[in-house]
Amino acid sequence: MKVAWAGSQHAVEVADRMARLVASDPVFRKDTRTMLSRKELFKDTLKKAAHAWKRIVELRLTEEEANLLRLYVDQPGYVDLHWGMFVPAIKGQGTEEQQKKWLPMAYKFQIIGCYAQTELGHGSNVQGLETTATFDPSTDEFVMHSPTLASCKWWPGGLGKASTSLRLSCSSHNGRKRLWHTWFHCAVAKLDDHSPLPGVTLGDIGGKFGSGAYNSMDNGVLRFDHVRIPRDQMLMRLSQVTREGKYVHSDVPKQLLYGTMVYVRQTIVADASKALSRAVCIAVRYSAIRKQFGSQAGGPETQVINYKTQQRRLFPLLASAYAYRFVGQWLKWLYTDVTQKLEAKDYSTLPEASCLYCWAQVCDNICHTDAIEECRKLCGGHGYLNSSGLPELFAVYVPACTYEGAMRFAVAGCKVFDEDRLSGGHWEPTCRHRSSHGQHTALDAMQKRCKYSRRLVNPAAVKEVFEARALRMAVNCAQNISKAPSQEEGFSELSPDLLEAAVAHVQLIIVTKFIEKIEEDIPGPGVKEQLQKLCSIYALHLLHKHLGDSLSTGCVTARQGALANEQLGKLYAQVRPNAVALVDAFDYTDHYLGSVLGRYDGDVYPALYEEAWKDPLNETVVPDGYQEHLRPLLKQQLKLSRL
Amino acid sequence: MKVAWAGSQHAVEVADRMARLVASDPVFRKDTRTMLSRKELFKDTLKKAAHAWKRIVELRLTEEEANLLRLYVDQPGYVDLHWGMFVPAIKGQGTEEQQKKWLPMAYKFQIIGCYAQTELGHGSNVQGLETTATFDPSTDEFVMHSPTLASCKWWPGGLGKASTSLRLSCSSHNGRKRLWHTWFHCAVAKLDDHSPLPGVTLGDIGGKFGSGAYNSMDNGVLRFDHVRIPRDQMLMRLSQVTREGKYVHSDVPKQLLYGTMVYVRQTIVADASKALSRAVCIAVRYSAIRKQFGSQAGGPETQVINYKTQQRRLFPLLASAYAYRFVGQWLKWLYTDVTQKLEAKDYSTLPEASCLYCWAQVCDNICHTDAIEECRKLCGGHGYLNSSGLPELFAVYVPACTYEGAMRFAVAGCKVFDEDRLSGGHWEPTCRHRSSHGQHTALDAMQKRCKYSRRLVNPAAVKEVFEARALRMAVNCAQNISKAPSQEEGFSELSPDLLEAAVAHVQLIIVTKFIEKIEEDIPGPGVKEQLQKLCSIYALHLLHKHLGDSLSTGCVTARQGALANEQLGKLYAQVRPNAVALVDAFDYTDHYLGSVLGRYDGDVYPALYEEAWKDPLNETVVPDGYQEHLRPLLKQQLKLSRL
Ligand SMILES: Cc1cc2nc3c(=O)[nH]c(=O)nc-3n(C[C@H](O)[C@H](O)[C@H](O)COP(=O)(O)OP(=O)(O)OC[C@H]3O[C@@H](n4cnc5c(N)ncnc54)[C@H](O)[C@@H]3O)c2cc1C
Ligand SMILES: Cc1cc2nc3c(=O)[nH]c(=O)nc-3n(C[C@H](O)[C@H](O)[C@H](O)COP(=O)(O)OP(=O)(O)OC[C@H]3O[C@@H](n4cnc5c(N)ncnc54)[C@H](O)[C@@H]3O)c2cc1C
Ligand SMILES: [Ca+2]
Repeated sequence: MKVAWAGSQHAVEVADRMARLVASDPVFRKDTRTMLSRKELFKDTLKKAAHAWKRIVELRLTEEEANLLRLYVDQPGYVDLHWGMFVPAIKGQGTEEQQKKWLPMAYKFQIIGCYAQTELGHGSNVQGLETTATFDPSTDEFVMHSPTLASCKWWPGGLGKASTSLRLSCSSHNGRKRLWHTWFHCAVAKLDDHSPLPGVTLGDIGGKFGSGAYNSMDNGVLRFDHVRIPRDQMLMRLSQVTREGKYVHSDVPKQLLYGTMVYVRQTIVADASKALSRAVCIAVRYSAIRKQFGSQAGGPETQVINYKTQQRRLFPLLASAYAYRFVGQWLKWLYTDVTQKLEAKDYSTLPEASCLYCWAQVCDNICHTDAIEECRKLCGGHGYLNSSGLPELFAVYVPACTYEGAMRFAVAGCKVFDEDRLSGGHWEPTCRHRSSHGQHTALDAMQKRCKYSRRLVNPAAVKEVFEARALRMAVNCAQNISKAPSQEEGFSELSPDLLEAAVAHVQLIIVTKFIEKIEEDIPGPGVKEQLQKLCSIYALHLLHKHLGDSLSTGCVTARQGALANEQLGKLYAQVRPNAVALVDAFDYTDHYLGSVLGRYDGDVYPALYEEAWKDPLNETVVPDGYQEHLRPLLKQQLKLSRL
Repeated sequence: MKVAWAGSQHAVEVADRMARLVASDPVFRKDTRTMLSRKELFKDTLKKAAHAWKRIVELRLTEEEANLLRLYVDQPGYVDLHWGMFVPAIKGQGTEEQQKKWLPMAYKFQIIGCYAQTELGHGSNVQGLETTATFDPSTDEFVMHSPTLASCKWWPGGLGKASTSLRLSCSSHNGRKRLWHTWFHCAVAKLDDHSPLPGVTLGDIGGKFGSGAYNSMDNGVLRFDHVRIPRDQMLMRLSQVTREGKYVHSDVPKQLLYGTMVYVRQTIVADASKALSRAVCIAVRYSAIRKQFGSQAGGPETQVINYKTQQRRLFPLLASAYAYRFVGQWLKWLYTDVTQKLEAKDYSTLPEASCLYCWAQVCDNICHTDAIEECRKLCGGHGYLNSSGLPELFAVYVPACTYEGAMRFAVAGCKVFDEDRLSGGHWEPTCRHRSSHGQHTALDAMQKRCKYSRRLVNPAAVKEVFEARALRMAVNCAQNISKAPSQEEGFSELSPDLLEAAVAHVQLIIVTKFIEKIEEDIPGPGVKEQLQKLCSIYALHLLHKHLGDSLSTGCVTARQGALANEQLGKLYAQVRPNAVALVDAFDYTDHYLGSVLGRYDGDVYPALYEEAWKDPLNETVVPDGYQEHLRPLLKQQLKLSRL
């Protein structure tokens, strides 16, 4: 199962090696992270980042190895933005000359870069950005300025304290009005002493959700007061400003920009899948250790994993972890495919891929943060302790829902999707769910096939049900939009339904990819059978959850819905004996899991007990404040001022 | 609307007065709470608790006023357990003599008490508790002992540092075997210097979810090493141990115990409703301030509250806040009613009420923590900042899901409920949803009435749909259970379905109570109309979410489901202009909300900016750690050890 999860024997081996390298290095310890003050935590992040780099250079790690090492260090920091956003942006938006100049410096960390788009008053809408870059032909410079408080850059990771440079989004301006949206590479801190350049105000935007968690990151605020930068700091691959101040487009196609976005999103999906699998691993292992209550007949207490209610909540999450893992592997392949086609100047699959990513991201986020929190609840009270690792996992991961203004992108994605459906074009080659005779014919045919009440044990039939659901919801939206006075109004009115249709579509894709996976040749005794069960659980629990959508298509009957639910119960019982093995297959070290409850050896209670005494509050037995605030109360010596 | 929300003019007035008293007192400031270290935070809690008590005494506040004052201080601490659990336990489980001895001390804070049941290895199952109390007739004492690590008391709030006493749950033991489950009042700290008594190990169990949040509470660990306490410290109202060591039951009926539980749960429901309404208030106000994107035609950006996707997510939460508020008012009434009946030795309504509370609690928790998190997401990136107040609100509130081992109780509740249904008894007088001709007849009749496709605009019809759903799910469970080899097995197998049926039942009650509310005479211009809209939104969004359940009953058609969804869109548009007024009606001060995004004056951006600079990381411009970890990296001076 390890191989099926990791993708290949090679992948198992590298991941394992890097995970152990990190786990055995005392600099990378993270067990007291939630107890550090903000300043200590940030300093710890700087230390870990430098040490990781040192190890990468010393051991001459490959890019694959280095990425894994950073993953297992598992502490958000400026490095993520430097490699994940800044370098790709320079590559995607800089001219060849600019790349030659800046990339070598970035590769050696002579400069540290971040990605500054969001402003205090403006998020994902780049057209609304207020930071201005006004070209001054007299000096061949741009003047960068933040005209209002709301125009401060706000949120960029690494900006507050660590970065020396940034990839900046702002509006070009001619002094009177907004011209275009442009990108710059812009220095903000002096390279000799790291202090902000003149005219630049820099700071951190303050504490964020959770203890530890994303507080290791210096999300920053930046205000420009008429800062001058040379014209050639503008990232000029896609458009240029001439010496005279004329704005010209280059012949490089705009689509290339999407390449970067698709890349970023693909990593977000992969991270989401990682976070979910970690939470599931903790919850499954602890559920097998934790005992509560017995049978009515007395006798020893029962492992909570044996309770049907626990299984109904936990096992669909286990199945989802696998489902997302496989769809993530497919997305990665898709990204490579798109990139290759882009290089060959074939832009045909790009819009589709970028839409798909949007949805996958939305759906995924909606499911996953809830899922992590559900895992935490499944651990009962102890899941609320920082030592369980779950609070940090949740808090670090939740902003992924927000990173890219999820809703906005989803809705935009739906538009492309549905405009295309409306016009009858072929939109989605990966899920051939439309008969050539048109949509309604397809639905009719499916309805006819829906007679055997037990047919939902068959993957092909299950897939058909998901197809019918997605199709019906899309067709409904299209019909309702066409009734609106204008298409724009129609889209705006129907956007919530479009979103639901998009989710249905994404779920169809995930189910399809999972089914495709189990149709492959899978080595290892029993592995295929286990995956088949997980696949059925994933599909049937979604069917149960969204039964209304499916009943409305007429492709499923209420009786079939009830049978599917019964079938689920049986599948849970079958998965139960292998549940722990199924999470062990993720091959996570105790260091990476960072959870007392998810320990591989199951020795939970002594570890919980030991962790407790590390809390600073336990430095003294009688607490600080006793003399001032507790003793006077107990001794009835509060100084009252009678009014 | 303020009056409808608060319950009466008097309630508006007292709440307002107490909220302002707290908000204007600098000791109660909480704006930098998330930046405090654990020790500072705990000391701050001690300080606030003492100060609140001082004010309560000085101003001779009534009990109602004092409770509200504590509510608005809004910082979890030992006081909550002292008043909420310890005092009621002494009242409920102590003999009259014991009450006379301990209550006056507790009322004056000469002792501080907590409620110690949970152990490291054991939670809600009191039968599994391992702490032992062995009676020693030679000295007329009990010997309290923690025989294993897993038997340490673990979690009790206030136990770690603040309490001097506890209400202890443990097993009586005769030295060889477990006898009964008993309660004690037991001192743990010396009254002169607050150090633990001999044989007692006391500590805090460590950091919990979030910054600030519930970390102000000293949830504690306690280990006994053969600690001796006099026999009369056993709480002897319900059962006693004689001088000879004989265990005898008193004639006080056991049901009285439930009274305490019902009380505790009623407060949990009330707290949940408060937490939800605070989150909704923040999200609605900020959504009206936040602007993103414009129409395709250009022009100024749109308030995000105008987006249909935002409305579809936000307005059902607004409606839920009202729904839970009203059901909470009803539960409070029910509690009073039950208590009065108990005093008159009428135990007829008690089991029902206590079941109801279980479900309300479960359903409620499932809904509310998700709802708070959804509100946070609806605020985009800024909702992730501590200054938004939402992370703390979430983190403080989530453990309410766990407090009482929610699932276990829910399942127990379902049992009572369904055993009763099975036996055909009349279980639930508040929702008369069964015709006297039996359950199936009732369903049949409803199915016949289901012909007008637009009937779901009518509250009575909506209620009928919820009744049919709850009824069908309960009947299904009952039928399936009767097929199982034994009833115990049947319950265990079907427990997940029972839980779904219970949720359906609770939703029916909430919808019913909301409908009853809007049928009352409600003063104030337009108030009734607004509440009618919210009531429809609450019911129809649930119908949409659980459409499968209703379609399966045959009491709703797919067409009606689609129309209900359209109807929802219209209702959102109608609520939109009053949304802000509807949250202003909660009458929360900025202090209580504790959110920069939810400010009453809407001046969000300057406040966010100002908050940021308070972060300790901004004490210096160049961060601590630059010299050691950042400069060597940038200057290529990392000391590499070539291997
Ligand atoms: C941890 C974290 C790290 C970040 N790192 C970076 C970084 O490195 N660089 C950077 O530039 N930015 C960064 N950001 C900012 C991030 O990109 C934005 O938060 C994100 O784009 C969402 O935008 P917003 O916060 O303005 O939310 P808003 O857009 O204001 O969203 C508020 C609400 O309005 C809704 N909404 C908004 N527009 C629409 C619409 N058109 N239709 C329907 N609904 C709509 C949203 O769904 C949401 O419910 C980071 C944010 C976080 C939380
Ligand atoms: C913030 C906080 C404050 C607390 N304060 C106090 C306090 O003041 N005093 C005190 O005594 N305790 C306190 N507790 C402890 C609290 O009462 C327990 O955490 C709670 O009873 C849940 O029990 P557990 O933690 O043992 O969870 P478990 O019972 O171990 O739950 C683990 C999982 O098993 C499932 N499960 C357990 N039993 C069953 C069953 N029979 N059937 C089906 N599923 C089951 C649960 O649903 C859950 O998913 C506190 C806890 C927290 C988080
Ligand atoms: Ca902290």
